[in-house]
Amino acid sequence: MILTVTLNTALDLTYRVPALVPHASHRVAQVIERPGGKGLNVARVLAALGHETVATGFAGGATGETVRELLATTTAGGPHPVRDALVPISGATRRTVAVVDTESGDTTQLNEPGPAITPAEWAAFTARFTELLDGARAVALCGSLPPGIHVGAYAELVRRARAAGVPVLLDTSGEPLRRGIAARPDIVKPNLEELAQLTGSREPYRATRDARRRGAHAVVTSLGPEGLLAATPEGLWHASPPAPVRGNPTGAGDSAVAALLAGLTEDTDWPTRLTHAVALSAATVLSPVAGEFDAPAYASLLPRVTVHEPASAA
Amino acid sequence: MILTVTLNTALDLTYRVPALVPHASHRVAQVIERPGGKGLNVARVLAALGHETVATGFAGGATGETVRELLATTTAGGPHPVRDALVPISGATRRTVAVVDTESGDTTQLNEPGPAITPAEWAAFTARFTELLDGARAVALCGSLPPGIHVGAYAELVRRARAAGVPVLLDTSGEPLRRGIAARPDIVKPNLEELAQLTGSREPYRATRDARRRGAHAVVTSLGPEGLLAATPEGLWHASPPAPVRGNPTGAGDSAVAALLAGLTEDTDWPTRLTHAVALSAATVLSPVAGEFDAPAYASLLPRVTVHEPASAA
Repeated sequence: MILTVTLNTALDLTYRVPALVPHASHRVAQVIERPGGKGLNVARVLAALGHETVATGFAGGATGETVRELLATTTAGGPHPVRDALVPISGATRRTVAVVDTESGDTTQLNEPGPAITPAEWAAFTARFTELLDGARAVALCGSLPPGIHVGAYAELVRRARAAGVPVLLDTSGEPLRRGIAARPDIVKPNLEELAQLTGSREPYRATRDARRRGAHAVVTSLGPEGLLAATPEGLWHASPPAPVRGNPTGAGDSAVAALLAGLTEDTDWPTRLTHAVALSAATVLSPVAGEFDAPAYASLLPRVTVHEPASAA
Repeated sequence: MILTVTLNTALDLTYRVPALVPHASHRVAQVIERPGGKGLNVARVLAALGHETVATGFAGGATGETVRELLATTTAGGPHPVRDALVPISGATRRTVAVVDTESGDTTQLNEPGPAITPAEWAAFTARFTELLDGARAVALCGSLPPGIHVGAYAELVRRARAAGVPVLLDTSGEPLRRGIAARPDIVKPNLEELAQLTGSREPYRATRDARRRGAHAVVTSLGPEGLLAATPEGLWHASPPAPVRGNPTGAGDSAVAALLAGLTEDTDWPTRLTHAVALSAATVLSPVAGEFDAPAYASLLPRVTVHEPASAA
């Protein structure tokens, strides 16, 4: 199975309104509830692709109960629903609210702070994580850290995964990324903003290679609509969709992570992994529902993704 | 005991952000959760004033569970916590989100639609309501109707209360108010906007007396910072605070309803009822927490409220 970790899970609410006007009152026309937090999104995409997937992290309170119910129901259709291995906490799982203007398609985001995690809860989590590594073919560590968890938490989890011989992908930002990358994860997947924070450079090639020198075996940088740039032990590649796609980019990065994890477990070569990651990402942007992918679009995009070794690799 | 009805209960969330910017991402600095819907606010204020209070209406889903827990915990301090007589439903109680800009104090409101009520759930409610009327000294019918409930619902409940000999106050708007007022409630409490919708007039005296001719025994119109205007069988009065108060007006109308209900059960004269309603309303605006009142301010405002019979009463 593939294991995903979401320390700061969320109940994601999407509100559709004609247009958000500050200091006015709005009747919300439509409410969509989804299990949220990057690792849960990755797990749902993996389940939709037919992989056996286990999701761990934290969940608590009424919002946490709702997240668990939604995780079960939204993955019930596939051959392997996501197995829920979330660790209960005394605090309540946070909500995020995305207010979508139906007139313009623009989104306003409101993110609640996460619940504080106690030392006993962190200890219970690390014990569960270590158990779950036995049987995992790959693990993804995704998203921000909730309050109460030490900033070196991802570095600690990367070391535990490596000690267990399980390939590990890290998708986070800021100081948790800086510390985590030094613990030598197999893959990190920053976007350009996260990479600039880490390396001080906004030049994609330079920054991606700089990040790799900090410890990651491979760095896969998201270039948004222009695809993915990967610095790996086998070389440097740029994978691009046949044309930029228009739609809702929410969850596109999580779909790329899901494809890279699947590639790790199948031991495919890098160009193949990147092709799947770019096609799945673009198919996610094209889906009308944020964080889900358009399966026919995924199939039709796969043969049209281009992968090349850029000249600046020299 | 005093009975309050909230057909469209809510989980009220208050998010504090420095300033809401459309199409940007915001970290919410503080989240406050409260049981919401006008009738629950009225019940909490009555409980804080020491009255035995029963709250009915509908609650369902994880949000409904949270509303019930919050109702129990937020009224646990007084001599009589609000007794929860909410009727369970299969749908989920709606959320409302108030985004408060801490820089300006302005609020942006997002209100989810309520859950659809089935005919069986409405039948269960009316049976519970009729049981509860036996023992009630007054009843308040508050707020909007959720989907699935017929627009004459409040008229039906007013008739049931009158048949049971229980004084009834109606606080709603639009067509439910128009139908409800024709069933002859003891008091209706519109604001100027609701009154203009009902009567077509924005002139407070004319509109208040017009509303009374439509069937209510008394009409108490909220004039916002300028107090209350009441057309009653005993005469016309205007009650005003000593000076306009600055603060958060959320819940000020619900506090006025609580004071008017308490006056109904104590059979005080109209000037006394209006004095309490204006002082309690102003003390609610002055409270730092939306929907709660500042008890020392209430005590100090009471002797300073003025009530006069306006010249235009002639």
